[in-house]
Amino acid sequence: MASWQPDSINMMSITPKEMGPPGSQNSGCASTCLGTKHEPSLHDITLETEDAPSTPQPLSWFKLREYCRDAFSELFGTMILILFGDGVVAQVLLNHGQKGDYQSISWGWGLGVMLGVYASGTSGAHINPAVTFANCVFRGFPWRKLPVYALAQLLGAMCGAAIVYGNYKSAIDVFEGGPGIRTVPGYSTTATAGIFCTYPAEFMTKTGQFFSEFLASAVLMFMIFALKDDVNFGAGPLTPLALFFVIFGIGACFGWETGYAINLARDFGPRLVSYMLGYGSEVWKAGNYYFWIPMVAPFLGCTFGGWVYDVFLYSGLDSPINTPWMGIKRLLGPLHRKHVVLQNPV
Amino acid sequence: MASWQPDSINMMSITPKEMGPPGSQNSGCASTCLGTKHEPSLHDITLETEDAPSTPQPLSWFKLREYCRDAFSELFGTMILILFGDGVVAQVLLNHGQKGDYQSISWGWGLGVMLGVYASGTSGAHINPAVTFANCVFRGFPWRKLPVYALAQLLGAMCGAAIVYGNYKSAIDVFEGGPGIRTVPGYSTTATAGIFCTYPAEFMTKTGQFFSEFLASAVLMFMIFALKDDVNFGAGPLTPLALFFVIFGIGACFGWETGYAINLARDFGPRLVSYMLGYGSEVWKAGNYYFWIPMVAPFLGCTFGGWVYDVFLYSGLDSPINTPWMGIKRLLGPLHRKHVVLQNPV
Amino acid sequence: MASWQPDSINMMSITPKEMGPPGSQNSGCASTCLGTKHEPSLHDITLETEDAPSTPQPLSWFKLREYCRDAFSELFGTMILILFGDGVVAQVLLNHGQKGDYQSISWGWGLGVMLGVYASGTSGAHINPAVTFANCVFRGFPWRKLPVYALAQLLGAMCGAAIVYGNYKSAIDVFEGGPGIRTVPGYSTTATAGIFCTYPAEFMTKTGQFFSEFLASAVLMFMIFALKDDVNFGAGPLTPLALFFVIFGIGACFGWETGYAINLARDFGPRLVSYMLGYGSEVWKAGNYYFWIPMVAPFLGCTFGGWVYDVFLYSGLDSPINTPWMGIKRLLGPLHRKHVVLQNPV
Amino acid sequence: MASWQPDSINMMSITPKEMGPPGSQNSGCASTCLGTKHEPSLHDITLETEDAPSTPQPLSWFKLREYCRDAFSELFGTMILILFGDGVVAQVLLNHGQKGDYQSISWGWGLGVMLGVYASGTSGAHINPAVTFANCVFRGFPWRKLPVYALAQLLGAMCGAAIVYGNYKSAIDVFEGGPGIRTVPGYSTTATAGIFCTYPAEFMTKTGQFFSEFLASAVLMFMIFALKDDVNFGAGPLTPLALFFVIFGIGACFGWETGYAINLARDFGPRLVSYMLGYGSEVWKAGNYYFWIPMVAPFLGCTFGGWVYDVFLYSGLDSPINTPWMGIKRLLGPLHRKHVVLQNPV
Repeated sequence: MASWQPDSINMMSITPKEMGPPGSQNSGCASTCLGTKHEPSLHDITLETEDAPSTPQPLSWFKLREYCRDAFSELFGTMILILFGDGVVAQVLLNHGQKGDYQSISWGWGLGVMLGVYASGTSGAHINPAVTFANCVFRGFPWRKLPVYALAQLLGAMCGAAIVYGNYKSAIDVFEGGPGIRTVPGYSTTATAGIFCTYPAEFMTKTGQFFSEFLASAVLMFMIFALKDDVNFGAGPLTPLALFFVIFGIGACFGWETGYAINLARDFGPRLVSYMLGYGSEVWKAGNYYFWIPMVAPFLGCTFGGWVYDVFLYSGLDSPINTPWMGIKRLLGPLHRKHVVLQNPV
Repeated sequence: MASWQPDSINMMSITPKEMGPPGSQNSGCASTCLGTKHEPSLHDITLETEDAPSTPQPLSWFKLREYCRDAFSELFGTMILILFGDGVVAQVLLNHGQKGDYQSISWGWGLGVMLGVYASGTSGAHINPAVTFANCVFRGFPWRKLPVYALAQLLGAMCGAAIVYGNYKSAIDVFEGGPGIRTVPGYSTTATAGIFCTYPAEFMTKTGQFFSEFLASAVLMFMIFALKDDVNFGAGPLTPLALFFVIFGIGACFGWETGYAINLARDFGPRLVSYMLGYGSEVWKAGNYYFWIPMVAPFLGCTFGGWVYDVFLYSGLDSPINTPWMGIKRLLGPLHRKHVVLQNPV
Repeated sequence: MASWQPDSINMMSITPKEMGPPGSQNSGCASTCLGTKHEPSLHDITLETEDAPSTPQPLSWFKLREYCRDAFSELFGTMILILFGDGVVAQVLLNHGQKGDYQSISWGWGLGVMLGVYASGTSGAHINPAVTFANCVFRGFPWRKLPVYALAQLLGAMCGAAIVYGNYKSAIDVFEGGPGIRTVPGYSTTATAGIFCTYPAEFMTKTGQFFSEFLASAVLMFMIFALKDDVNFGAGPLTPLALFFVIFGIGACFGWETGYAINLARDFGPRLVSYMLGYGSEVWKAGNYYFWIPMVAPFLGCTFGGWVYDVFLYSGLDSPINTPWMGIKRLLGPLHRKHVVLQNPV
Repeated sequence: MASWQPDSINMMSITPKEMGPPGSQNSGCASTCLGTKHEPSLHDITLETEDAPSTPQPLSWFKLREYCRDAFSELFGTMILILFGDGVVAQVLLNHGQKGDYQSISWGWGLGVMLGVYASGTSGAHINPAVTFANCVFRGFPWRKLPVYALAQLLGAMCGAAIVYGNYKSAIDVFEGGPGIRTVPGYSTTATAGIFCTYPAEFMTKTGQFFSEFLASAVLMFMIFALKDDVNFGAGPLTPLALFFVIFGIGACFGWETGYAINLARDFGPRLVSYMLGYGSEVWKAGNYYFWIPMVAPFLGCTFGGWVYDVFLYSGLDSPINTPWMGIKRLLGPLHRKHVVLQNPV
């Protein structure tokens, strides 16, 4: 009987893995998303060891990980985004601007997205439910993956926010005036809830809030599609760096009025965490129940931005816009076909 | 009869498209401009479906888009430029510098150009009529495209300025002191017209204004030609990033005195929009009728900058400078030939 | 007899070098570390000249350099890191913030790491004992190299700190109030010891200090593994630039509370230098004997960050996590085998 | 007889050019310098037209340009460097820091070098006599080119400074208090001579001044050699970007005390221009005759930095350090050979 030895890794028989149901359409994702370099030779293997029969499930984690690979990837990508993004807001706020200013915040969110994309390239580096949604609509990304991605992104954002809270707990106590005091912008001058999620400027109307988030989301999606379109200039391996500039730019140019959430996971996840941590129901009431806008507007904005890009600039055949009747006929396809079948039953 | 089905996209017959008149010389453009990676296999196809006869014009939009591809590309590229550029000025101005400073403005315009170039690579990413002009003079870019490009750039800049106005309307009302109050720098201390177009510093003479714009435009064109010259160092896929540094540098080093418009579309388009939005005739009168300088100086400056590069450093044969008599003979060619024909009638 | 001539370099016979014991496993390092482009054709040669017999050891330095190549590479990489990092803190502190602010410090440390990585690519560009440690644990980097690397990194950091001290000696005298006065933060308002190593913010508890360093180290290692993982997005030749953003981000987002040492060499080396230069025993006592935290926490943090990446995202077979029982069986391998041998003595 | 026609460019016979004496060793340069992509097919041609006999010298400019190509390249590269570098200092100084701060100055000089390198890739992008000198010593760059390069760099710097003066003349008048008033730091509180060249901080001793320039130059050269060494990490096409970070870093970390000239051309050229423009003999007297330090220290610093890199890290055979006796024997080669010939006259 062969026992395990330090170099037993060389004894594993590496066999191509049969694609399992949930993770199998993964390769389809990679081409629609941020130019992921997919090397199936490393992923799609199973580890079989000689003593596998005697220890029946030594590799169960690897099987589970294969099933959840996309989810883990999005989760950690969004966590990195929130770690840097919420972290920089905390640092700038809590020491009264001595260790950073608004420019730092643009940097923090920009590089949070950049590094989050580097961390989650395996799954396409969406780290934003609205981006996943627009990819489903315009790039043939499978719809059934949307809830998985969105959930993973939400959980990742919540983890990130909780870690930032843990790291800055003492400093928050000092800033708020005592342990246990947790306040929300608009209700206190020493509020710290703005570390976690966005609160709009006071003069904004509901329409203005919505338009600001809608516009920033549309610009984001337009630029993502442009950066990924190799018939256009195409950013290729520079995509994460270019996204840094996109997010930095959105922060520097459209970030003041509503805080540029442009991402359900980025805003709702940490808001939920701050609510659970004791910031009270003001996190929902603030800004005249602003909280639903960064949940809804990004989806509409990203869809609009992607639609504009595809209608005016995109020539790839994976977009429904580039099918007859701009995809409307395709949407109506099953209906139309059923109708046809009824009339021409052959 | 074949009806449309969800996967009917696979049934289309893809045939090489005959180059139509307006868009056909496009491929010539790509090589003269910012290193666009032109992949004709995706563009130059027509979609033919089996039920095309019964629905005679389902693809008319795609045909129109093919004709207008360059124009759309320049329009959206310039729109992105103005969205970020005017957006950052609005954000810095309207909250009294709390959410950014002059450095932010350099960032905003720099990344506006960078992202605009990414968005408009298909057409060569000029996003500036003066750059198109210099490409016509020195790089054999077809002259008949100049008005199309210039018009598209102007329209794009106007769209961008209008969107920025819509986004910041409430904030402008607050800053100006009330809805409907719209003032111009030099006529008010709460002027917001500077968001949209440039107004020079007060101590500048007409000559100084002109020279400042001329110099910045010349540096811009010199650097564009340098970045595109692969016999020199050549920026290749890093060109958009290098252009970020060029624009940032022009803003940080020559931007104070006149605001570095260096672009007819960037300045005249938003100026027109601000006039239409009710800023009054002061937008034209300000700075002693400064408005014409950013319309004229960029053309002269870019031509001079390109001329210097070609005379001293460029060795490519597509420049008229590198033909006998530095292109002067070539300019006089038709005249000269006629004269020769008269004297030597063989 | 052939004498040396100016072009005698062309006369050398270049022969493949036999790999010597200490430096020979070097090529194994390169693949585990920061994507070093190893070109053995240039390194692995010996210079043989025709008059070598008459001058028996003209090349002894080259032989020594071959043995110490990794050490020199890490030493100079860490020296560059400290030159820029400590240098920027000195410049910002000593002129009372007129020539830089906290943002400058993030820049300085970020580009210090970036340029240090460029300087030490030969050895894998660890420039941090904790990164070397995590590479030993998770990427099969040889353990016997750990002390060599750690020592070289420590010496490099000490050299860098000494050079910065020499450069800013006059300015430190002016700032402290006189030559020979050297004070430590917490004991004086004109303290300059913070130039060299980190001192935590006053409100931090021991746990908070530890957690902050642990978290930053974990994020660092997680991102290093992500950037090097080509199955993920992978940064490839952009790795030094991406590391700039990682370090900048850690400084901007988690840098305030403890100064983000995240590196034994970076903190202990300059602290030792500052002690030797006369800053007194306060360098050890400050922050309630804070000095040991940046020595211990980075190792634990980097190991944890690497472990998270490998457990959830990494699929390479060089990680023990991707072996059966997640490497635990492999750790126990020799023990297990001995046990097996006792029972099955064949 | 064939007359010129608009498309006559296609009729030229393109023949490989015989390498003329001054420009012929150019290709040797390219490999020693900043990774220039040399495409001889475009450069090394002569234009021959059919009517050349009747117009004997239509191409004389092209022949002259071929001879002066390196000089033009260095001249314009250095001019770009000074345009951005002196320009940013002017902008920050003249509006009392409202349009930029010290961070902007780091940006300006950093991107000045980056864009200067892009502009002068043909000649190797030295734009610094000390870098040319170190390339002569350590990389076999031909010594006879040193005076040509140094003169071109000096002239380029002078042109750049003169253009910046022209652009900011009105603003200088306002700042100094009147037209014709031109003062030097240390002699006036409204001095503007610091726009053009460097003046040290007042507390610096001569030794400190020298060491600061020496150190910065050594770091510069060490990093240039590291970035160009493909056996190390190697920056390749990212070299100009990496140089931005090097110069930014030197400015942010070692730039305060003496202003980091680290370049004879950058400091002496503009200083001469400012003297000619009427700043008086104080430009030489200031800082206790500081002017000679940035002329001498960069040569020593760059040589030392290059020596350290080659001794400890470089393995390329083009460095004399990697020849027997570390190049000392090679230096003494001719002498030694003569001696040998005297004793062994065969």
